[in-house]
Amino acid sequence: MARIVMKFGGTSMAGIERIRTVAGLVKSEVEAGNEVAVVVSAMAGETDRLVNFCREASALYDPREYDVVVSSGEQITSGLLAITLQSMGVPARSWLGWQLPIKTSDAHASARIEDIDTTALNAALADGEVAVIPGFQGVGTGERVSTLGRGGSDTSAVAMAAAMKADRCDIYTDVDGVYTTDPRIVPRARKLSKVTYEEMLELASVGAKVLQTRSVGLAMKEKVRVRVLSSFDTDMRDESGHRGTLIVGDEEIEESAMERQLITGIAYDKNEAQITLTRVPDKPGTVAGIFRPLAEASINVDMIVQNVAKDKGETDVTFTVPKAELARAQDALEQAREAIGYHRLLTKTDICKVSVVGVGMRSHAGVAAAMFDALAERKINILAITTSEIKVSVLIEEDYTELAVRVLHTAYGLDAEDAAA
Amino acid sequence: MARIVMKFGGTSMAGIERIRTVAGLVKSEVEAGNEVAVVVSAMAGETDRLVNFCREASALYDPREYDVVVSSGEQITSGLLAITLQSMGVPARSWLGWQLPIKTSDAHASARIEDIDTTALNAALADGEVAVIPGFQGVGTGERVSTLGRGGSDTSAVAMAAAMKADRCDIYTDVDGVYTTDPRIVPRARKLSKVTYEEMLELASVGAKVLQTRSVGLAMKEKVRVRVLSSFDTDMRDESGHRGTLIVGDEEIEESAMERQLITGIAYDKNEAQITLTRVPDKPGTVAGIFRPLAEASINVDMIVQNVAKDKGETDVTFTVPKAELARAQDALEQAREAIGYHRLLTKTDICKVSVVGVGMRSHAGVAAAMFDALAERKINILAITTSEIKVSVLIEEDYTELAVRVLHTAYGLDAEDAAA
Repeated sequence: MARIVMKFGGTSMAGIERIRTVAGLVKSEVEAGNEVAVVVSAMAGETDRLVNFCREASALYDPREYDVVVSSGEQITSGLLAITLQSMGVPARSWLGWQLPIKTSDAHASARIEDIDTTALNAALADGEVAVIPGFQGVGTGERVSTLGRGGSDTSAVAMAAAMKADRCDIYTDVDGVYTTDPRIVPRARKLSKVTYEEMLELASVGAKVLQTRSVGLAMKEKVRVRVLSSFDTDMRDESGHRGTLIVGDEEIEESAMERQLITGIAYDKNEAQITLTRVPDKPGTVAGIFRPLAEASINVDMIVQNVAKDKGETDVTFTVPKAELARAQDALEQAREAIGYHRLLTKTDICKVSVVGVGMRSHAGVAAAMFDALAERKINILAITTSEIKVSVLIEEDYTELAVRVLHTAYGLDAEDAAA
Repeated sequence: MARIVMKFGGTSMAGIERIRTVAGLVKSEVEAGNEVAVVVSAMAGETDRLVNFCREASALYDPREYDVVVSSGEQITSGLLAITLQSMGVPARSWLGWQLPIKTSDAHASARIEDIDTTALNAALADGEVAVIPGFQGVGTGERVSTLGRGGSDTSAVAMAAAMKADRCDIYTDVDGVYTTDPRIVPRARKLSKVTYEEMLELASVGAKVLQTRSVGLAMKEKVRVRVLSSFDTDMRDESGHRGTLIVGDEEIEESAMERQLITGIAYDKNEAQITLTRVPDKPGTVAGIFRPLAEASINVDMIVQNVAKDKGETDVTFTVPKAELARAQDALEQAREAIGYHRLLTKTDICKVSVVGVGMRSHAGVAAAMFDALAERKINILAITTSEIKVSVLIEEDYTELAVRVLHTAYGLDAEDAAA
């Protein structure tokens, strides 16, 4: 007998027919003798509908009232899944965030889970009852309803698995796992049986939108074994007979080092914009003067390139920010124009960040060099470079995205032997 | 300064534009120096949508989970109204049923309010904050979400007014008050400035669907002054300058006895069906034998006519039941066929119950006779008759409904001098 958390996203909960499919998957786990808690998202589109109501009511809505409104989407699906499970003969009940309770911080609309009381939950599981828990919600000080921010249901599931000391947290979604790259670009992309938390963090944050980054960080911290798999193609297995992708610690991957690739996957991200400040004084403190106003506006700066100094002690500074924050970044820099002393502010949005990720590169040199060679061979110009212990990223012209991803997927030997359907 | 409860129905809450209108009405009361609690319904159509989800999930849904699902409609509108009020500079917060709490019985999906804790509410009102309260919901044993049954928001508002010792409970709806009869049938129908609780109970239960019957009964018991008025035509006033219709105790009406009419209003109800059992043995106990199985199936029998005995000690028994329960009533009677010993079971659904209602008839004889005369003059056949202290009802062929209502409205002197627009 295992204790597991199953989490279902919005597309899996979109309508009673799909909820019945979900209930069937839950029933299978119960019949296999497992203790099961299920964490559910709102029906696809429902949270957007509710968020829009709040925005329409007031652009400056009270986040505490916003939480009352938007948390109802998961409340609805929790009750409906409990009813559906019961109708299949599986004892079940819903537990709202305030009922367990799931205690959170008071940062309404983006709260953090602080404590989950599992007393009632454990009693229910011991009685053979499935616990259905709305994701995304909790309760803050003064028993006010709170939510975790968009995509928070993955985090709810991992936190629940940690609190319950679950053997596994299965995240059901509309893809059957994590791939070596986007299969829409590379049909020969392979599903990965296992990735490490760190790899998943890098893959998720650079565009492989399978799991919310925050939930992967929490899983790593709490050592929760997470599996990503499809709620639609429930028979889909890889060559080794595994379903989905398991996300685990380094140590588990090392055990099967034989299979280990140097590079685990190729990710890309079109959500960055490039800013160049021209003719910035080339003296100590200038770079700090640029990034301080951005930090104060809570804008994340990613890739930074400081060009070699030109004549007259001046240089150009180039960096990237999320596209969604470009306007705010421009504002902040315009206001600091005199303090920084730059000549012009240039922006560029038709760019893409392509990254190769893999824990294997820790013990191997030459990964970056191989990347630059492969791109150079296809005449793909590199605008900027960043590296971490398990990742090398390059910034390129957006038009070259697909070509670059395909070239790198082949160069690192990731192509499957047979093309996927 | 007065303390008032304002209640808004589904059409008043259908979308942000209408919620803004509602917020404007609330703001006016606050600016007039009143302490205000607002009770809201779900957006029009939302509860139906949620109920259908539950039914689709399982015809035999768990009412506790149904309550979790359907209570979310009012949760949404509560948060949205609080946001809208704040955006107009009116301090406000939502209080969900479990937060106050509003304690109810455990009859999920049709719970009764048992106790409302007003401690937190009173503190909020004293702070000048508007309390926005979702109607229809409460919390039962074990902190499980409960609902009061369809139309329960009127009951929530009256219960809240009683618990808060409010000076008035204003029920805003899509009509501007209670009329002497349906203005779609009689354009010269007049809006009533005041009716008694008992009259309202009779008018509501026979078809004037302005207020949920249960809420009127509660208002009578708790002596809550209820006013029904429109949230749309907010300038509409009657000849005496009153807005809406006030529903109060007998004693308040007596004070203005000069204006008092013999009959307050004419109601009609097309939701009944007639059952006739032919050739039933005419002996003691037979009638009990007919109505016992119906009572056991919780089917309300309304009008009963036992025909004069024919030959051979047999008679026909005719009575009415709600149309919605006709099939179940037939089932129950088929099963008791041998015990009762009837010959045939005949049903008729094209019938209508027309009633004249008024506390004035207590002290006047001849009301029923005037009714029969007026109907006979127009050759309208009476199938059955029932009377109470303040009501006379007749059952007629459905086709004659409008004619009968008009004839009676004129006969009792209820027509306005000028036709309504």
